[in-house]
Amino acid sequence: MRDRARRAIAECLHIATMTEEAGCITRRFLTPPVHDVHTHLHGRMEALGMDVRTDAAGNLRGIWPSASQGHRRLVLGSHIDTVPDAGAYDGVLGVTLALEWVQLAQETALPIAIEVIAFSEEEGVRFGLPFIGSRAVAGRFDPSLLGLRDADGISVEDAIRAFGLDPYAIEDAQVDRDVIGFVEVHIEQGPVLEADGLSLAAVSGIVGQTRLSLQFSGHANHAGTTPMHLRRDALAAASEWITAVETLASRTDGLVATVGKIAIEPNGSNVIPGMARVSLDVRHARDSRREAAVDELVFRARSIADRRGIAIELTRQLNEPAVSMDERLTAYLSDAIEAAGFPPKCMSSGAGHDAMVMATRVPTAMLFLRSPGGISHHPAETVREEDVEASLQVGRKFLERLAAEHISSS
Amino acid sequence: MRDRARRAIAECLHIATMTEEAGCITRRFLTPPVHDVHTHLHGRMEALGMDVRTDAAGNLRGIWPSASQGHRRLVLGSHIDTVPDAGAYDGVLGVTLALEWVQLAQETALPIAIEVIAFSEEEGVRFGLPFIGSRAVAGRFDPSLLGLRDADGISVEDAIRAFGLDPYAIEDAQVDRDVIGFVEVHIEQGPVLEADGLSLAAVSGIVGQTRLSLQFSGHANHAGTTPMHLRRDALAAASEWITAVETLASRTDGLVATVGKIAIEPNGSNVIPGMARVSLDVRHARDSRREAAVDELVFRARSIADRRGIAIELTRQLNEPAVSMDERLTAYLSDAIEAAGFPPKCMSSGAGHDAMVMATRVPTAMLFLRSPGGISHHPAETVREEDVEASLQVGRKFLERLAAEHISSS
Repeated sequence: MRDRARRAIAECLHIATMTEEAGCITRRFLTPPVHDVHTHLHGRMEALGMDVRTDAAGNLRGIWPSASQGHRRLVLGSHIDTVPDAGAYDGVLGVTLALEWVQLAQETALPIAIEVIAFSEEEGVRFGLPFIGSRAVAGRFDPSLLGLRDADGISVEDAIRAFGLDPYAIEDAQVDRDVIGFVEVHIEQGPVLEADGLSLAAVSGIVGQTRLSLQFSGHANHAGTTPMHLRRDALAAASEWITAVETLASRTDGLVATVGKIAIEPNGSNVIPGMARVSLDVRHARDSRREAAVDELVFRARSIADRRGIAIELTRQLNEPAVSMDERLTAYLSDAIEAAGFPPKCMSSGAGHDAMVMATRVPTAMLFLRSPGGISHHPAETVREEDVEASLQVGRKFLERLAAEHISSS
Repeated sequence: MRDRARRAIAECLHIATMTEEAGCITRRFLTPPVHDVHTHLHGRMEALGMDVRTDAAGNLRGIWPSASQGHRRLVLGSHIDTVPDAGAYDGVLGVTLALEWVQLAQETALPIAIEVIAFSEEEGVRFGLPFIGSRAVAGRFDPSLLGLRDADGISVEDAIRAFGLDPYAIEDAQVDRDVIGFVEVHIEQGPVLEADGLSLAAVSGIVGQTRLSLQFSGHANHAGTTPMHLRRDALAAASEWITAVETLASRTDGLVATVGKIAIEPNGSNVIPGMARVSLDVRHARDSRREAAVDELVFRARSIADRRGIAIELTRQLNEPAVSMDERLTAYLSDAIEAAGFPPKCMSSGAGHDAMVMATRVPTAMLFLRSPGGISHHPAETVREEDVEASLQVGRKFLERLAAEHISSS
């Protein structure tokens, strides 16, 4: 298994050389290096006896029909696009590991067909819209999205055509609803597993997310001539609220709340800030908890503003409900973790993944690998060889379990 | 007196029409509209029988030698430059009122000579350096300042020469050390007198000022995948500290402390801020109080940063001691306020003024007029006619007191 783990890692590092810009890893939706990744993966899939095609959304798909006919199909995969100046493992590792799972299934002649999908787009960098690949596979690609344009004015439709594909055949990319399900292996992109000293975890679901913008409007005035009790300082109000955001989130199990953006006016060292605009990002695996937290934080903002004679303006920008992973498949993954000799761990994902979109169509599960330092979307992103090996041991147990069920039910 | 007040105000509004940019009031050091102001004031001074000259720093100076020879000279004045898009009264009112004081002295044949100075530069806009005019008059103009350049690459020396003056004669601008003193009338530029329901106040001194820059360096991370207890959020740290700054200042009599600037990185709504840089401006009339407050705030910043595992970097940018006004002249002003029938009020100035520089050379006093709404450096800046009238009544009492002293001492 250690050798398989090393190969999965080496493959990620090889694919990392296929980039839009030498010296860093940047591979946006259907840009030229994607051709190189497809050529490479196509070769590996064919060598494993898989039937390979590229669907109209640019997803590379290989099917291993199993040793004999008529077996149900498990779908595996993740994405091969990256953020600018990315690491080598986000998404790609889920594809190279899927090919290792295929080999494990082949070697033990498991009665399962497997389809591996290298999704063309997940990060949302080129067109400002994430999940183009998995939307197509899940049957959730709205044709109007073909008109979206990138920074160079090229539309999604143009990009698909330029890649040699037919943008009007995207409907054919939909996966059968009667597959066993979809499983995605992905790095955690956070510090939880490392802090807990664990290699991996089953994912219970993707958290729901609310994104707001708040503007505090006070009164700009001279920092020297305005006594404290006559001020209406918008930054002081925002700061009091940012502290309240952190306090509430820290006291609420599983909640994360972040003020990541701030802009103030006039932003001069000798002028009391008259305006402060801040962002708020709130996430929780349970929608009711998230909504209650947002309500409480909005209430706190209004109280703070009222007490200070400051006006407040609030814009809701995003309100995405949580997505649960399939209970049965997730239980199988958890069992596989224990069966492989690792401590059971189930956690929610704080970030979106293709699995979130796939879950709208087929039973879906997800396996997280430890992210050393919690680092992702950065060249320093890495994985531990032992964790990758652990994921393969879990994969074998998981496939065996599925196969056993398939035999017993057939 | 009401007519004199109206004239002083009308003169300000007339001078406001002399601007670099039509539709707003912008008049930087030695720009073309300053010629117009000089021509206008020159005419008024000559009509009052004053000897008029422009010194090498561009200050317009008129001397009324008093009705008979040998009387000591009182110096009055303020500045005629403005910030961009300014109001009509900041500085200019102190010049137009000085000419009214000259007339009051003339009408009652007081045994005092009076010099009125319209300082050429106080705001520091064109060359990033304030008090060019009063520095020259106070003998504190460092010749190396001639090399400073404005945004167009024009040096102070070029600007003085282009105005028809000799930059190497600035030393001759120095006022005699044996004048009675300098008195500046100026709008408060703050909300204190309005909040107290008062027309005017004697100024006890100009507050000292410390300006710092603080940088909090934590760790940028994914807002969804990083639990609260594993964050090192630089903005959360800065916010806690900004609240502490406000709390300390509110509890310390006479202290003002302001965080007017903030910049964070990476400043994305879904990323925990890894860096936050903020400014701090602290002012108090007593240097020991200001220094103690700065020490306490730096200590608090370090404590907050330490507890959060965040690094802190501190840059001291300014450390100006407080400047006291002359006790005797200030007492005369206070007495004059009471003698004129107004409630006595003495306050410190939170902003710098020419009086601060003049105080380094001659006994100096300052009279503040109420700023409606506390508004200054803004087109909405204004004055109340009754307050301007009050300042003239105080001026008359003040001049009579000086004259009485001069007679008794001669």
